[in-house]
Amino acid sequence: MVINKPYLLFLGDASDQLAAKTAEGVAFWSRSDCVGQMRLPGCNADLHLPDLTIAEASELGAKTLIIGVANRGGRLSELWMPHLREALETGMDIANGLHDRLADVHGLAELAANNGRNLFDVRHSSVTFDVATGKKRTGKRLLTVGTDCSVGKMYASLAIEREMKRRGIMARFCATGQTGILIAGGGVSVDAVTGDFISGAVEALSPDQEPDHWDVIEGQGSLFHPSFAGVSLGLLHGAQPDVLVLCHEPTRGHMRGLPEYPLPSIENCIAANETGARLTNPNATCIGISLNTAALDEAEARDLLEETEARIGLPCVDAVRSGMARLVDCLPV
Amino acid sequence: MVINKPYLLFLGDASDQLAAKTAEGVAFWSRSDCVGQMRLPGCNADLHLPDLTIAEASELGAKTLIIGVANRGGRLSELWMPHLREALETGMDIANGLHDRLADVHGLAELAANNGRNLFDVRHSSVTFDVATGKKRTGKRLLTVGTDCSVGKMYASLAIEREMKRRGIMARFCATGQTGILIAGGGVSVDAVTGDFISGAVEALSPDQEPDHWDVIEGQGSLFHPSFAGVSLGLLHGAQPDVLVLCHEPTRGHMRGLPEYPLPSIENCIAANETGARLTNPNATCIGISLNTAALDEAEARDLLEETEARIGLPCVDAVRSGMARLVDCLPV
Repeated sequence: MVINKPYLLFLGDASDQLAAKTAEGVAFWSRSDCVGQMRLPGCNADLHLPDLTIAEASELGAKTLIIGVANRGGRLSELWMPHLREALETGMDIANGLHDRLADVHGLAELAANNGRNLFDVRHSSVTFDVATGKKRTGKRLLTVGTDCSVGKMYASLAIEREMKRRGIMARFCATGQTGILIAGGGVSVDAVTGDFISGAVEALSPDQEPDHWDVIEGQGSLFHPSFAGVSLGLLHGAQPDVLVLCHEPTRGHMRGLPEYPLPSIENCIAANETGARLTNPNATCIGISLNTAALDEAEARDLLEETEARIGLPCVDAVRSGMARLVDCLPV
Repeated sequence: MVINKPYLLFLGDASDQLAAKTAEGVAFWSRSDCVGQMRLPGCNADLHLPDLTIAEASELGAKTLIIGVANRGGRLSELWMPHLREALETGMDIANGLHDRLADVHGLAELAANNGRNLFDVRHSSVTFDVATGKKRTGKRLLTVGTDCSVGKMYASLAIEREMKRRGIMARFCATGQTGILIAGGGVSVDAVTGDFISGAVEALSPDQEPDHWDVIEGQGSLFHPSFAGVSLGLLHGAQPDVLVLCHEPTRGHMRGLPEYPLPSIENCIAANETGARLTNPNATCIGISLNTAALDEAEARDLLEETEARIGLPCVDAVRSGMARLVDCLPV
């Protein structure tokens, strides 16, 4: 799946900034790939990009309209349809991060085909993957893993890729979820892959590379999440990571969506991920911790980073506050 | 998915007995549900059931024709089609354990609909499952787990269910793979479920039960198989087993299909499964070991069972040679 850039970010009638979270992620990490935003009456989100019509975006070279808005239930709204149709007729592809499929909208696939355009339902996998072989691949791999879902694995991965590239290290972010796929312009939504092929899909996502090339693979879920751990383990085995970075959100009271389930300790989570990873890469090692301290003030965050680093004995950073330099310093050569 | 019994076992032009392995499993475990077998010219398999035509089977009450034969690539053969069509026209459903789908055969779905019949592609999941909740369910659960794929988890599960029922214990075999589904007349092929819903599918397969009812859940794959461990972990979490039984094939030289990967030790495999299971059921305990000693002679098998039992410190049985009584003796009350 390769989604052509640059993008027009479609915010529709997003009721607030949170409803445009997917577009916000794309704008934060791929701003130079975004020609502008398109907002309908009633939209209360703003990414501080130029407001454009479809025609204006097309003139500025936009290749793909990104549906970067979520409403209740993840539905494609009837209200958006005239604009989606106009985008196809103007020569743009459409990429959609919602559960609803563009392919299921009456007449849209036909209109796309007639205009030689593509529809990308990035949460759904239309590709057939092979079963994983477990064979060692060339090149190096870093995987972000987490104590829970939604603790900052994508942000950490993108920040690590950025720091690697800044130093001239060959690196590539490998997206495994919908927002990451829209940022990277490609990838595999691993939680949408059929069980038997999860590890195989990750092997395909991160094939043989140059010996000193790093694939930075976005983690999903957590080995300790009772709903999604199967995906996390299949991803861990398929990634064959040389290096793990553990991601954690320190104010999370329980596993996402499951009040009965406490979070694992950072120590146990590192141990379980190292043990799991060593099935397919006996050298896999966790080199550091990325805390998402957005909910803490500056002093609290600094204290927690220092305390965690001292307790665990590994570098502990925040992708936004402290950057990833200290983790990238620790990469094996 | 509920498949109506009794069955006519269709062996087609199976080149040898191994090609009819699925039908053989059904005939072994559900003989009284099978009115007979149907063989085409060139068939070299024999389940020692009455040879019947479609019409004869229908007169004997057969409700479903089971495609219990596999050829190279798991394809539906053109040669079989006249017989499949005749079965639908005679009033039978068809259930298929191959990768190829009946639903994709030109005209077959229409013919089934016109005759009020059902087509079951049991390897494929057409059902939508909820995400797992991890909530404790009532009733008791036993899950078979393995050092590898194809080590006898289905046979062990069915033998345990049979021994439980013999003692008057309320028990139900919960099928998670195609042959098990055909034997049970229902179930979920968990390796065909989308990653995010593996654990949720198992929660649906084994819902709340009477407090002293046992669901005996068929395991799949192995936590140590680099291709399929994600499915095994999702199944382990969704099953919330009170009791685990470890299955092992002692002559297996390496993980199935992967010569580079040795088998885990029984000790490590028990420990990893207990640790994983305790996320959703803190009381989960392995109560015994089921060895598939079919490849050993009587004396070798006896020695190995004794040696393994002494080394691990848990009852060690063979489903076929020694039965499951000693494991069922160990169930918590």
